[in-house]
Amino acid sequence: MIGVGIIGYGYWGPNLARCAAEADGCHLASVADLSPAARRRASQRYPSADIEEDWRSLIANPKVDAVIVATPTRWHFELALAALHAGKHVLVEKPIASSSREARILIEEAERRGLVLMVDHTFVYTGAVQKIRDLITSGAVGDIYYYDSTRINLGLFQADVNVVWDLAVHDLAILDFVMDASPLAVSATGAGHITGSPENMAHLTFYLEGGATAHLNVNWLAPVKVRRTLIGGSRRMIVYDDVEPSEKVKVYDRGVSVDGEADLPRAEEELNRLRLNYRMGDIWTPQLSVKEALLTEMEHFAQCIENGTKPMTGGSSGLRVVTLLEGATQSLGRRGQPVELAGMRAAS
Amino acid sequence: MIGVGIIGYGYWGPNLARCAAEADGCHLASVADLSPAARRRASQRYPSADIEEDWRSLIANPKVDAVIVATPTRWHFELALAALHAGKHVLVEKPIASSSREARILIEEAERRGLVLMVDHTFVYTGAVQKIRDLITSGAVGDIYYYDSTRINLGLFQADVNVVWDLAVHDLAILDFVMDASPLAVSATGAGHITGSPENMAHLTFYLEGGATAHLNVNWLAPVKVRRTLIGGSRRMIVYDDVEPSEKVKVYDRGVSVDGEADLPRAEEELNRLRLNYRMGDIWTPQLSVKEALLTEMEHFAQCIENGTKPMTGGSSGLRVVTLLEGATQSLGRRGQPVELAGMRAAS
Amino acid sequence: MIGVGIIGYGYWGPNLARCAAEADGCHLASVADLSPAARRRASQRYPSADIEEDWRSLIANPKVDAVIVATPTRWHFELALAALHAGKHVLVEKPIASSSREARILIEEAERRGLVLMVDHTFVYTGAVQKIRDLITSGAVGDIYYYDSTRINLGLFQADVNVVWDLAVHDLAILDFVMDASPLAVSATGAGHITGSPENMAHLTFYLEGGATAHLNVNWLAPVKVRRTLIGGSRRMIVYDDVEPSEKVKVYDRGVSVDGEADLPRAEEELNRLRLNYRMGDIWTPQLSVKEALLTEMEHFAQCIENGTKPMTGGSSGLRVVTLLEGATQSLGRRGQPVELAGMRAAS
Amino acid sequence: MIGVGIIGYGYWGPNLARCAAEADGCHLASVADLSPAARRRASQRYPSADIEEDWRSLIANPKVDAVIVATPTRWHFELALAALHAGKHVLVEKPIASSSREARILIEEAERRGLVLMVDHTFVYTGAVQKIRDLITSGAVGDIYYYDSTRINLGLFQADVNVVWDLAVHDLAILDFVMDASPLAVSATGAGHITGSPENMAHLTFYLEGGATAHLNVNWLAPVKVRRTLIGGSRRMIVYDDVEPSEKVKVYDRGVSVDGEADLPRAEEELNRLRLNYRMGDIWTPQLSVKEALLTEMEHFAQCIENGTKPMTGGSSGLRVVTLLEGATQSLGRRGQPVELAGMRAAS
Repeated sequence: MIGVGIIGYGYWGPNLARCAAEADGCHLASVADLSPAARRRASQRYPSADIEEDWRSLIANPKVDAVIVATPTRWHFELALAALHAGKHVLVEKPIASSSREARILIEEAERRGLVLMVDHTFVYTGAVQKIRDLITSGAVGDIYYYDSTRINLGLFQADVNVVWDLAVHDLAILDFVMDASPLAVSATGAGHITGSPENMAHLTFYLEGGATAHLNVNWLAPVKVRRTLIGGSRRMIVYDDVEPSEKVKVYDRGVSVDGEADLPRAEEELNRLRLNYRMGDIWTPQLSVKEALLTEMEHFAQCIENGTKPMTGGSSGLRVVTLLEGATQSLGRRGQPVELAGMRAAS
Repeated sequence: MIGVGIIGYGYWGPNLARCAAEADGCHLASVADLSPAARRRASQRYPSADIEEDWRSLIANPKVDAVIVATPTRWHFELALAALHAGKHVLVEKPIASSSREARILIEEAERRGLVLMVDHTFVYTGAVQKIRDLITSGAVGDIYYYDSTRINLGLFQADVNVVWDLAVHDLAILDFVMDASPLAVSATGAGHITGSPENMAHLTFYLEGGATAHLNVNWLAPVKVRRTLIGGSRRMIVYDDVEPSEKVKVYDRGVSVDGEADLPRAEEELNRLRLNYRMGDIWTPQLSVKEALLTEMEHFAQCIENGTKPMTGGSSGLRVVTLLEGATQSLGRRGQPVELAGMRAAS
Repeated sequence: MIGVGIIGYGYWGPNLARCAAEADGCHLASVADLSPAARRRASQRYPSADIEEDWRSLIANPKVDAVIVATPTRWHFELALAALHAGKHVLVEKPIASSSREARILIEEAERRGLVLMVDHTFVYTGAVQKIRDLITSGAVGDIYYYDSTRINLGLFQADVNVVWDLAVHDLAILDFVMDASPLAVSATGAGHITGSPENMAHLTFYLEGGATAHLNVNWLAPVKVRRTLIGGSRRMIVYDDVEPSEKVKVYDRGVSVDGEADLPRAEEELNRLRLNYRMGDIWTPQLSVKEALLTEMEHFAQCIENGTKPMTGGSSGLRVVTLLEGATQSLGRRGQPVELAGMRAAS
Repeated sequence: MIGVGIIGYGYWGPNLARCAAEADGCHLASVADLSPAARRRASQRYPSADIEEDWRSLIANPKVDAVIVATPTRWHFELALAALHAGKHVLVEKPIASSSREARILIEEAERRGLVLMVDHTFVYTGAVQKIRDLITSGAVGDIYYYDSTRINLGLFQADVNVVWDLAVHDLAILDFVMDASPLAVSATGAGHITGSPENMAHLTFYLEGGATAHLNVNWLAPVKVRRTLIGGSRRMIVYDDVEPSEKVKVYDRGVSVDGEADLPRAEEELNRLRLNYRMGDIWTPQLSVKEALLTEMEHFAQCIENGTKPMTGGSSGLRVVTLLEGATQSLGRRGQPVELAGMRAAS
């Protein structure tokens, strides 16, 4: 029974705390937060947990085997590193750190000490994303042509990171999980519309090895909430709509193939069209697991600690995502000028 | 009663022909097409029109006062120029020509001869786009932050132009009509997934003067048909969904403003958020004119000829759109490297 | 090549005329209408057809082998009977007649003369309804539990029939085609809200032999257009949404079965639930034929005449539907008091 | 600070408990449940509350000022009556009791003792239903023509009540709150498809004084979840879709009025239409309060106790709803034969 301590009981922390309390294989041992109000809420909800103001006390607590870092991004590195130094396993909210340099230091430290280092790429643990990965790896989708995601809503603006680091990170984590191809280059455009705030809108195109592309549309200033991803393949296409209450993943038996019959006479009005065959087949909406992703993730964390196995979203996954965020940010500042990412996987 | 002749009775031509036949102020005098089957259909449908194989006969026909060019793009310039030379008013399917150079020649020729030169930017004549322009020019939207459009479906692949020249042209025509700000630069990315065909997927970001951005997502290889545009402004936001049968334009009284109350105490968990005020107000769905856009357009064409007035979508509008298409194509070939467009309006 | 004459070129007639002109196996020989404007439109559209003011001339025309009756309901009987008397095959717009007595006379007359008598139950010829029938007859749906349809919109109010005779007739025609079970009784409620007009809103429940029920919700005074039918079966359930542009039929592998494991201990909070097993499986959206239903219907009409075969929607189908309309109307006047329909199939 | 005790910590009880714990003006003093597992959960969640096996101990507890009855329906009466006898205020889950006789006894007992008796008609406390009531009472909707609701999903089958008592009760509670007109008669049809279980599908039509009708479609055996109500009025119409995450209430400026211009010449094809004017105006989607309904309800309960005022959903509201359920059940057993409800309001 792994004792879990959580640093940060603000926006996302309470969800992680609840799952740590409910998950098989672990229990909530301690919560640390600077805010008296947050500590009061945590204490009322978890009367048996040790509630701390200073995160150093939480890390030092012998009841705590594993530390969850659920603070603003800028503190991820320092807290995660301190926890690793204290011999604790670590789960860090996304993104794993503020830079690839920091992420590499965390990975090395965890490896040196034989500790589990995991990043909270929550969507990877959803029934939807697991199903999409199955569809891709089984060959049902065929060659991947593109991944095209829209992740927009009104708020919540972050003070210390732009919309890319806040929202695109989700898609990059999903991409890292479902696709094998490494990104080679990125072109990113965007804008900040609110004075004094970072970019709240961005469009990112990643060129992947093998010819596929991935495009992400992220926006904190949209009137409606959209969470929709299209995945185009040579055999089938997927629409993943996370706002749908139950029909989140639809598989379309649709596509285009080059028509081999070259000798058909064609009327003038068809001369302008390519000789293509448009396939419009059935749609299939698989039933997905309804288990809460965060709970699945927490149990996976506990099992990795228990068995000494690598997490599905380990430090290297966190590093790859941060590297892409860095490349995108660089291009964003240059109005879309492409930034090479070659050698990224190798480097990580 | 203006006599209208149409060159090209393939995919879009029959719609233009029908509107020319039904519109007030004009009648369908002649149809020309190389295909015998097309001529047969035209003849059966319009027994009183002169049906021609050779477009030269149509242009030379004294019953024809105005010529509609509804052929593949690569022939627009030659046919439109010939019609102008023959002293005929001209309406060209979008895009007006294959290059800005060609567009300029057409404009000059029409001006020299005092003829109407108009481009078939159909969406400009829809109730939806007219309403959006009203909302913007009346100040209801406030400062425009962005225009973000998704225009995707399965097919129809074109042989002589890529998806940008086929689909993005619609959004650029709308943008040209509803917004005053000139584009300063464009970054475009994209890919072609079908061997032997041009790019079937592209993402375009235009940087406009004054700080707004416009992003267009166009794709011939998507499993679903989407026609959705978000327009974000400082006062209100618009969602324009052209696939909706009746509720195409929704106006959201939503937005974000910087909160002036700086002295409120804040809990730790809020430190990471900006001091912003999120406004979530009512939604308003105006009833739109249900008159067919193409019919409205045709009557506008007839009136411009009758009264010697400038069309809403005249040659200069066609030129501006083609110039943007050229810039986008250039950037597309360079993986998003930004292409400057400054001086474009001036030049046109 | 069967010559088709159409009586009535008002709201629906032009669609029938167009299909008669385009369908394989027949051509449009004549159109009759009392209105000069309607005759002018017909003449312009079909210059080679004989255009008549008096329907008697159309029926007497030797070029006319088959007559389509596309007038208001109250004239269906008289015109169809006259056409049969003249030895012409007949296709009548729905409902086939104003009463079951009239319908029976038409059936007898057609049989006596060996003529085809068909009713325009258009939906039967859609890809959606054909697919639904296949799903039911193949056993994929299992035992049918219920058919529950909502068919509502704003307008068009009819002067001579109420909403049941105008809208419910569609569902009854579909039911007659896809289900074998005979209706045993009907309970109908409804109301008229506009002074001087018949009922514009009604709810009909049919009790079918074998225990299934069919419910129809029809309304001319609804703010939105809905065309949605749920079919519940023991093995699968269907949602048929005719407003959807492409995904009209969805098959749900969902249902409830009685749980056999009776010895499980149960907590107090579960005592109140039945021991049932809820099955939540995949959804399947079959691709449907996109051929226009009315064209399919017209070609079927021509083939039945050619081959002397029985139409899928023959006179007896029209009679059964009218009998149900009569029963529903009777119950409607008595605030839902059930009206027995037993022996209906036998009688017909 | 009112001490609240809850009897029943099964399906709905935990929600009521949480709101009792969080609401201003009250606190959670005690929880009673027969199930050891339920008591364990309650104890862990609310360590400071008295957890009881026997509800008599809860009622007798001096810390308990008000009792919430959250058990299966068949125990509502006995427990509520015992609580009133002990001088406690009472909030009963819907429906208030199993019969109108029982409901009347509860009302009398509460009045005799000057105690608050309230029923948990949760929807009445939603922002959506409050807005609908405002729209109706302000005259914006005009004369109400109809209320037409669809409330269907897969499960949860109840053992002791049919679908009418489980689902239709919600709509009847809403109707009782938003409309003044008394129901005069009811016709109900339905069926049970699962052996050994009560009716799982029903359609209810209520005839209201003044000519309006209310129709409810309830179903436990539907493949999809629908929660949609149409309200038709002479001036405007409302669509209330509770499944929509944010746009739950839409107000349509649409309708039909009789056209007064009687002397217009009309073409033949229009003879069959009534001389009506169809109004298709704007749609308005008001922003609704996002406060949780159950929390609003709990604070209202506390205020009524504090101030001695009548609750919005008091015993008499519960009685009226139960009386309608009784009438519907009676008609349901007779295949829709109408049951008179006249005098119901008077009687209550």
